[in-house]
Amino acid sequence: MKVIEYRPEPGEFAWTFGGAAPVREVRPGDVLQVWTEDCFAGKVRTERDLVSRVCEFPFLNPQTGPFYVDGARPGDTLALHFVSIEPARDTGAATTVPFFGALTSDAHTASLQEALPELVWLYELDNARRTVTYHAKSADLTFDLPMDPMHGTVGVAPGALEARSSLVPDAHGGNLDTPEMRAGVTAYFGVNVEGALFSLGDGHARQGEGEACGTGVEVAMNTVVIVELVPGMATPWPRLESDAYLMSVGAATPLENAYRVAQVDMTGWLSELCGVDRMDAYQIVAQAALAPVAQVCNPIYTVTSKIPKSLVPAAAAYRGIHAELRGRAARLR
Amino acid sequence: MKVIEYRPEPGEFAWTFGGAAPVREVRPGDVLQVWTEDCFAGKVRTERDLVSRVCEFPFLNPQTGPFYVDGARPGDTLALHFVSIEPARDTGAATTVPFFGALTSDAHTASLQEALPELVWLYELDNARRTVTYHAKSADLTFDLPMDPMHGTVGVAPGALEARSSLVPDAHGGNLDTPEMRAGVTAYFGVNVEGALFSLGDGHARQGEGEACGTGVEVAMNTVVIVELVPGMATPWPRLESDAYLMSVGAATPLENAYRVAQVDMTGWLSELCGVDRMDAYQIVAQAALAPVAQVCNPIYTVTSKIPKSLVPAAAAYRGIHAELRGRAARLR
Amino acid sequence: MKVIEYRPEPGEFAWTFGGAAPVREVRPGDVLQVWTEDCFAGKVRTERDLVSRVCEFPFLNPQTGPFYVDGARPGDTLALHFVSIEPARDTGAATTVPFFGALTSDAHTASLQEALPELVWLYELDNARRTVTYHAKSADLTFDLPMDPMHGTVGVAPGALEARSSLVPDAHGGNLDTPEMRAGVTAYFGVNVEGALFSLGDGHARQGEGEACGTGVEVAMNTVVIVELVPGMATPWPRLESDAYLMSVGAATPLENAYRVAQVDMTGWLSELCGVDRMDAYQIVAQAALAPVAQVCNPIYTVTSKIPKSLVPAAAAYRGIHAELRGRAARLR
Amino acid sequence: MKVIEYRPEPGEFAWTFGGAAPVREVRPGDVLQVWTEDCFAGKVRTERDLVSRVCEFPFLNPQTGPFYVDGARPGDTLALHFVSIEPARDTGAATTVPFFGALTSDAHTASLQEALPELVWLYELDNARRTVTYHAKSADLTFDLPMDPMHGTVGVAPGALEARSSLVPDAHGGNLDTPEMRAGVTAYFGVNVEGALFSLGDGHARQGEGEACGTGVEVAMNTVVIVELVPGMATPWPRLESDAYLMSVGAATPLENAYRVAQVDMTGWLSELCGVDRMDAYQIVAQAALAPVAQVCNPIYTVTSKIPKSLVPAAAAYRGIHAELRGRAARLR
Repeated sequence: MKVIEYRPEPGEFAWTFGGAAPVREVRPGDVLQVWTEDCFAGKVRTERDLVSRVCEFPFLNPQTGPFYVDGARPGDTLALHFVSIEPARDTGAATTVPFFGALTSDAHTASLQEALPELVWLYELDNARRTVTYHAKSADLTFDLPMDPMHGTVGVAPGALEARSSLVPDAHGGNLDTPEMRAGVTAYFGVNVEGALFSLGDGHARQGEGEACGTGVEVAMNTVVIVELVPGMATPWPRLESDAYLMSVGAATPLENAYRVAQVDMTGWLSELCGVDRMDAYQIVAQAALAPVAQVCNPIYTVTSKIPKSLVPAAAAYRGIHAELRGRAARLR
Repeated sequence: MKVIEYRPEPGEFAWTFGGAAPVREVRPGDVLQVWTEDCFAGKVRTERDLVSRVCEFPFLNPQTGPFYVDGARPGDTLALHFVSIEPARDTGAATTVPFFGALTSDAHTASLQEALPELVWLYELDNARRTVTYHAKSADLTFDLPMDPMHGTVGVAPGALEARSSLVPDAHGGNLDTPEMRAGVTAYFGVNVEGALFSLGDGHARQGEGEACGTGVEVAMNTVVIVELVPGMATPWPRLESDAYLMSVGAATPLENAYRVAQVDMTGWLSELCGVDRMDAYQIVAQAALAPVAQVCNPIYTVTSKIPKSLVPAAAAYRGIHAELRGRAARLR
Repeated sequence: MKVIEYRPEPGEFAWTFGGAAPVREVRPGDVLQVWTEDCFAGKVRTERDLVSRVCEFPFLNPQTGPFYVDGARPGDTLALHFVSIEPARDTGAATTVPFFGALTSDAHTASLQEALPELVWLYELDNARRTVTYHAKSADLTFDLPMDPMHGTVGVAPGALEARSSLVPDAHGGNLDTPEMRAGVTAYFGVNVEGALFSLGDGHARQGEGEACGTGVEVAMNTVVIVELVPGMATPWPRLESDAYLMSVGAATPLENAYRVAQVDMTGWLSELCGVDRMDAYQIVAQAALAPVAQVCNPIYTVTSKIPKSLVPAAAAYRGIHAELRGRAARLR
Repeated sequence: MKVIEYRPEPGEFAWTFGGAAPVREVRPGDVLQVWTEDCFAGKVRTERDLVSRVCEFPFLNPQTGPFYVDGARPGDTLALHFVSIEPARDTGAATTVPFFGALTSDAHTASLQEALPELVWLYELDNARRTVTYHAKSADLTFDLPMDPMHGTVGVAPGALEARSSLVPDAHGGNLDTPEMRAGVTAYFGVNVEGALFSLGDGHARQGEGEACGTGVEVAMNTVVIVELVPGMATPWPRLESDAYLMSVGAATPLENAYRVAQVDMTGWLSELCGVDRMDAYQIVAQAALAPVAQVCNPIYTVTSKIPKSLVPAAAAYRGIHAELRGRAARLR
């Protein structure tokens, strides 16, 4: 396996999916070792670094990439297998940002109220103990939460000639902010343009479901990804596969539409994999799917549909590529 | 502990929360052994029993109750501890119903399209093996899913002088349809009227998150509940407590509002239990809460916020009543 | 025509649709001269009368009624023709209420933000000049707006054995808060229970579309209504008819669902009245309907679909009862 | 006044806002006489030209432009005054498109139902009589509706380095689909990039509010626009001004958010123009604003807030540029 290392220089980040020139060309089968900056472009390092002061819109969620995948064509599926996602700093930051987050009015759920207080919580990260440590500000309370590193943004160039901000999720992926985007997972994206032009960023040492305050525990990441291509198979919405789950991520507002998109996609997928018609697949989804909220803070919301592979007998997805990639990943260690 | 057995006669069911006369008076500390009919009022027993033919709106979700709780007053909290919830038949039914369910237009998400096909799936239930068995209709596919019995509807009489259909969830509980309402759980409801007037029904041998097709695996239940009262403590939205989780259930449409309600309630609750201010509690919720969708098919949707008790150091909720009820439940066996 | 006068005593108001005993029995054809109290139960009379201090939830939107209509049965349509709606005081009040209104977080669009300031604006009402006079609080600005009196709440007892707060709109009518409910209009409601049990209240000297601050210019009203019955014709959602428009009011959240409900109902109605199929009626709705927002502040939102009768050739609705009622109303003056 | 005529060649259309090279450079004060193609790229000319057969996604809503406005810089406002908008063909087409429209499930309000029938309605357009003529397909019914020509899409390049499909509306304008975008109106857009890069297209001979079937009466247009710049004044959301109304257009989903965005913007605008604080402006909006739905079919919905200028005393908006442009337009005839 060819291993490509890439660490962007400060001026090399992309801020959109689509509309940015590729930084490297890779081939299906290549292993990519990349570094990603945090969502704040590295500017929030102390509790005094309020986002509204140190960050400049739209220069948030810097993307490492895009990468041009040799041979990728519209109608194909790009498979990205996350071998490892490891925090690259020993501190992560979570913040409130005025009029951003799930439990405040925002640019779209507009109100005339004052913004919530703007705050920064710093978490200590311990890659060995796999913990992130929370400190309350208003009382003497400290405790550890499990480290569960993930990428908030992963995606390809969108279709319809668009370029989308890296703050937005949609059918092309982007700012999906699902905690399921962790090591051991294969992410599938439908290719919209030649070369796919994928990028990633926005690492979280962990996040709650919904990303209620608008951020996870944000941190730069050292990430290893195996890049693969599934020619001739289309993928309408981002899908994920772990050893345990088949997953589909719906992106839409209102939130019930994100749920509907994910479940309709899962219904179609299960119909194929189980060899049943859509009504039978609907019934499997109805009784067997988990449906955690991913995020309720970006301009478009996301919900994940999860089917436990141990419960539902189904053919291997995408010609069994996930199992094969797991094998390759094991050999990399 | 006084044990009260109650099995409603056919004419004794309630169809609303509020507006129905109590069937029994119980006292805090009493153990209630009840039988609940399924959501179809027992009328769907074969694959030919289409809901639109055999059921008559609004006679769905028959309630066992309401029970008048001696001493319960507005401003108190009713605690219902589910000792056991066991399917009372060996077959459960899941159905599609025209213009009802998450993946179809319905009475509110109105469209001009034709309804989906109306179907009944019968599942074999095995209380010993703890399985429910799915059979596809369009192919030769059969598999077991874990039995995970729960009540779709549990609640008290609403405030504001209202009587609400047992098909609707809201701050009083009702048709919450969360799979978290299982044995081992204590459910908390704010009391709105003297005597609380709680009832329950709509048992599911299991359901997926979101209850996509509009039903779980519907079945009559034999259920044992310990009734308790927490005087002088108000509960704004339904809350659940298991050994592992503190939970709050939000009911609203659009679905993001159900999420917001649950998370705002959890933020306030954690603020009290952890002794931190609301912004610190917001941060805990943001990084530690799980947020599964409960249902997207009733007239009002529901989302559950779940905080793992093992991770977040917090004072005992409701004066530690859940642990005490677990102990009492153990002595009942 | 028999004329029935009714002015409720302080203890005679209803606070729900359904669940309240009738105050009078009327017959189809009777003329009802009633007085309705304002939404605040008359308690906001000065700028110091903040709703959160002087009003007690749920004692808002007091209803004059319910009236039992002799012969009304489920499946019939109740027609209420508004002969006149005249402010009964010379001052009206509009207010903000903490966490209530369209441009603030509320009980369902929950947030952690502080409430907006709580304020009362008093408007002078001049029934002769037909004006309501606004006074700014923060500057020396005063101007007149046209008086356009209407009832925010009109409706019948709901189906499904429910009793609904007079703060809520739904298929039974209730707190629709559409400015189209003015004199000269016939309102149609499907009858759900014997006697229909209609009531009305919540007069506004005028309101903007959406009722953004949560209130119109609230005032007690002297109102004259002719009561009629259309036996054997069902009405699924509230409909209105003026000399100029056929209207259907949808009530649902999110707001697009209120739009959908109104437009789907209008499509079905036009299909009947124009003698075309549903797709042709859909096309008429698509090019000819107006769709003003009614309110975005109650627990369920409302949108009105309006078809100009001068443009679309259609059979007389409800057997031409509106024209007939206009004639009867003229003879009353 | 310099008059610039521009009729795009078939290969010269833009399909996005942002991301397309300018076709002409214009200066503030210039008069632009342009021809715009219809939303179908001219491919639907008979009832047999079903969109799913003759059109190719994303090549819909072809844009005439973009035009580079000399001197326009971020923070300025572009003012486009519509002198005239005249149908350029004598037939317009309205269609249903599978899974597109307000009264059907679609890509985001996803369901498992079948699509509605796909149909084309052709309307005769008579520019002299100002009528568009509807013909039912299922019955012998024909009638005229008033011609009311408008542009569905008008906008500038978005910010945040984005390029957005011409099928989508947002803060940059785009596919707003409000019938208020008619001759005699000045449209204001905040400039996001140097040169503003505005374009227009998607003419409708008329449309209903909400654009329920997914299209208006679609037709190519001959349009005359005066281009002006208001340096140093920002415009957060698209605003319109006619002789009668100040208007703000909100774009968001769910639809209540489009309403909120429009009304919050109008509140801020009135606060400036009337010299009152935000709460007083909120009160004016609450009692005086009209709020028609614009469209409920695009990926993002739109609502318009309208304040009658005759009722609300307010300073001239944007330094009185609308009145001045009306004068210039009159001199053009």
